[in-house]
Amino acid sequence: MDKKYVIGVDIGGQTSKLGLVDARGNVLARSTIRTDKHDDVNLYVDDLAAAVRDIAEQVGGMDNIRGIGIGAPNGNYYKGTIEFAPNLKWKGVVPLAELVREKAGVPATLTNDANAAAVGEMTYGVARGMKNFIMITLGTGVGSGIVIDGNVVYGHDGFAGELGHTIQVRHNGRLCGCGRTGCLETYTSAVGVARSAREILETTDRETILRDLQWDKISSKDVADAAAKGDRVAIDIFNFTGGILGAALADFVAFSAPEAIVLFGGLTRAGDLLMKPLVEAMDNNLLQLWKGKVKVLFSELDGDDAAILGASALAW
Amino acid sequence: MDKKYVIGVDIGGQTSKLGLVDARGNVLARSTIRTDKHDDVNLYVDDLAAAVRDIAEQVGGMDNIRGIGIGAPNGNYYKGTIEFAPNLKWKGVVPLAELVREKAGVPATLTNDANAAAVGEMTYGVARGMKNFIMITLGTGVGSGIVIDGNVVYGHDGFAGELGHTIQVRHNGRLCGCGRTGCLETYTSAVGVARSAREILETTDRETILRDLQWDKISSKDVADAAAKGDRVAIDIFNFTGGILGAALADFVAFSAPEAIVLFGGLTRAGDLLMKPLVEAMDNNLLQLWKGKVKVLFSELDGDDAAILGASALAW
Repeated sequence: MDKKYVIGVDIGGQTSKLGLVDARGNVLARSTIRTDKHDDVNLYVDDLAAAVRDIAEQVGGMDNIRGIGIGAPNGNYYKGTIEFAPNLKWKGVVPLAELVREKAGVPATLTNDANAAAVGEMTYGVARGMKNFIMITLGTGVGSGIVIDGNVVYGHDGFAGELGHTIQVRHNGRLCGCGRTGCLETYTSAVGVARSAREILETTDRETILRDLQWDKISSKDVADAAAKGDRVAIDIFNFTGGILGAALADFVAFSAPEAIVLFGGLTRAGDLLMKPLVEAMDNNLLQLWKGKVKVLFSELDGDDAAILGASALAW
Repeated sequence: MDKKYVIGVDIGGQTSKLGLVDARGNVLARSTIRTDKHDDVNLYVDDLAAAVRDIAEQVGGMDNIRGIGIGAPNGNYYKGTIEFAPNLKWKGVVPLAELVREKAGVPATLTNDANAAAVGEMTYGVARGMKNFIMITLGTGVGSGIVIDGNVVYGHDGFAGELGHTIQVRHNGRLCGCGRTGCLETYTSAVGVARSAREILETTDRETILRDLQWDKISSKDVADAAAKGDRVAIDIFNFTGGILGAALADFVAFSAPEAIVLFGGLTRAGDLLMKPLVEAMDNNLLQLWKGKVKVLFSELDGDDAAILGASALAW
């Protein structure tokens, strides 16, 4: 019998999302496991393999699964490893594709989570037909997948596209999980936005409805909700975030001159609150020759499908 | 009769260098004209066509020339134009390839000067055999040519690789010819190094042999000569320059994960004065996974041959 289905896995810092995908790119079933529950990656792989088997039952079991495609932070496409991922509990070099292959009994292929999202976006999303674009994922961290002449850029070692760790604030920049300071993701990730909120609450006495929330539980969604209600502090946080992201995007354009930049992830739910200051800052920081020429688009793929679909595409 | 030769032209802000090249990559004859003499690009093209005819005489005239390859700042490979080049006198969009083709009577192809250098380096220089590297030219300005999977990156519009205009110093950055502030090239070009020297002379009373020189004539070579003699201020200028360049290179590595970065142009004659602080700063600013892995190399091609050879390669 032909193996007609693949499974896409999107590993995030907190949760891993699985999808059962057919050849047309339909996500037929979804599942979720915790990423941050186990310090031992072998126990995580046990959970993952169980979830894979579970979801495969919907189409008659593992015999119908051709393979598993995995998108992971700091994932290496060439080696199938996760290496030194600052937002994951597993340190050093983790041969995840091999571990999953052994436990699940089907081929497993791995890439950077944002590269997977870029493939999903190029195949099924707003980047359909584009040959040159940059995918930026705004989640727990900030990831990126760079597409040039229709191909994902992997670079010499398979790790290309770590734009969340380009340094945007050189002096007194925020401490990053990677051990350095001033990285883009310390400002423009979901966590970065919450951090901006806590910074303002701590260092000013500005009036804001964010003060009604539990200080250490404030999320980027709380900030977006407050901004949508007209809260000035919350709006300022999105202007600040968009300003930093837009200036960074202008530098990225100088590298690969993309047709578009596609933004994906929880933070994009803020909509115009993020988009407006971002586009303004990008345009202010672009070289003359690119002003007004580079599109900035939000992913329109349902929920987390871009990453799942992109990861699943690796498995065909 | 077979047309056995091509002409490579490297257009710099001050001078344009021509080379007559055979199929094996030998530069058989060289010539130079001024770039900055004419505000009117048509008069420049007259000079260039005359120099081309002159150099072609050495192999029996234009009948033996297959074509002209041109490397130019802000050169567009797709369109054959120079567009909004901050370091050239011709403003707006200049259809240079077409003008040269009309005057010289042979096909003319144009690309970014640093892209041409990258092609030269990949074909004949230290990047031979490399599939992923970044070429940085440190001349009047700072240019770049990015090679990914063996191909020069042109991007959606043909202008990819303007890394000299990524912004490295966000607050109180130096004014750039492009109209923005803080661009890499305002610090790490030959002009940028001279500017650093004048800044120190103006704003401090530190003792240095640079004070013996005419203030507005100080060149990067003067600074290198002084540093080689142990002048502390001159050495500090190279540490400062290397520090900014190295930190910038670390961000570029996060984009395309190259095997090497190749440096080319007048400033590289400073040798270890530049290389040591540069490599240290790059390593300090690299993500863990790239530390100690990315080579930084000086071009070893004779004089300006990388750019001439690279440009000439377009003409075959």
